[in-house]
Amino acid sequence: MPTTEFDTSLPSIRQLQELIKQKAVIELKLVTGDLLTGKVFWQDHNCVCIVDDRNQQTTIWKQAIAYYKSK
Amino acid sequence: MPTTEFDTSLPSIRQLQELIKQKAVIELKLVTGDLLTGKVFWQDHNCVCIVDDRNQQTTIWKQAIAYYKSK
Amino acid sequence: MPTTEFDTSLPSIRQLQELIKQKAVIELKLVTGDLLTGKVFWQDHNCVCIVDDRNQQTTIWKQAIAYYKSK
Amino acid sequence: MPTTEFDTSLPSIRQLQELIKQKAVIELKLVTGDLLTGKVFWQDHNCVCIVDDRNQQTTIWKQAIAYYKSK
Amino acid sequence: MPTTEFDTSLPSIRQLQELIKQKAVIELKLVTGDLLTGKVFWQDHNCVCIVDDRNQQTTIWKQAIAYYKSK
Amino acid sequence: MPTTEFDTSLPSIRQLQELIKQKAVIELKLVTGDLLTGKVFWQDHNCVCIVDDRNQQTTIWKQAIAYYKSK
Repeated sequence: MPTTEFDTSLPSIRQLQELIKQKAVIELKLVTGDLLTGKVFWQDHNCVCIVDDRNQQTTIWKQAIAYYKSK
Repeated sequence: MPTTEFDTSLPSIRQLQELIKQKAVIELKLVTGDLLTGKVFWQDHNCVCIVDDRNQQTTIWKQAIAYYKSK
Repeated sequence: MPTTEFDTSLPSIRQLQELIKQKAVIELKLVTGDLLTGKVFWQDHNCVCIVDDRNQQTTIWKQAIAYYKSK
Repeated sequence: MPTTEFDTSLPSIRQLQELIKQKAVIELKLVTGDLLTGKVFWQDHNCVCIVDDRNQQTTIWKQAIAYYKSK
Repeated sequence: MPTTEFDTSLPSIRQLQELIKQKAVIELKLVTGDLLTGKVFWQDHNCVCIVDDRNQQTTIWKQAIAYYKSK
Repeated sequence: MPTTEFDTSLPSIRQLQELIKQKAVIELKLVTGDLLTGKVFWQDHNCVCIVDDRNQQTTIWKQAIAYYKSK
């Protein structure tokens, strides 16, 4: 069976869903070297959207994420 | 079921469709470090096409996008 | 249905086909930072081949393209 | 048959599972150049989560890993 | 139908096969910035193997190729 | 038929298997720019594991390999 990458039973998907519920602030390091900080707003198969403290949304392609941690 | 990445019910695809309708100006950061600004003109499975204020079109491979935000 | 990435009904594929017919000169930015200029000669699922004004062909992997624009 | 990338019989998946059981400290080099150190906490299809000596969790996308070794 | 990437009817695959037959010297630019020069020795789904004038073989992952041209 | 990337009849997979049997020392260039040297210990679908002369194992993601050659 081919894998479907957006499987809500996967720990990595569930962890982001949990952070969305908690309105937790995370720090994301991208493959570009950019370090982005914000609350996780939504995620789907392709992207994670964060919102910063000035209410600016940034939509990040998952392919460009190196890692993240809670602040 | 294998995922089809261009699924118009996905929030990330819908958000870009919405920006196309609104003729909104976005700022795209690419994995090359380039920062491109323009109105979203069209998107498909592979690419996003933007048009700048001098009417120059730029066709961007989605694989090369790190993130974008509305200006 | 799994997506087939070389679908000639896709705008991004059609746009390149159109540029081939027009013998249009494009500027391609690669993820390496290289900026290549030439007429689009052919494309397939994996590659785009351009030819410069000294008739030198360069075969570019699509995976390495960040964006292109017409000159 | 299409490959499913999270196949627990694969040596690379099993090696990480073994390191989780042993609470082994590993050093991960990412494609960004970042060098991260910690105990492997969990892995799934997409990510590896490590925890450092101050109990900070970092969730790393596998796509961004270059290599790792035990310390 | 899912695409199989090593389709010998594709122009990009055929062009490399042709270069193998001709023992042509090519110059390959990689995403690392490396510029490698040699005769194309073989290719498969994942790799291209070149051999330089001191008979040293180098096996290159296709994923790391930006572009190539004949010398 | 979709391709399964770990096909032991592929030249690139067979070549690595041969190097494992020969306990040959190879030099691997990664997309990070790192140059790693060691004997190939094992490979699977995702990774290549090498061991250096101090018996340190390094597990390398294939996605991060640019090229390798025998020393």
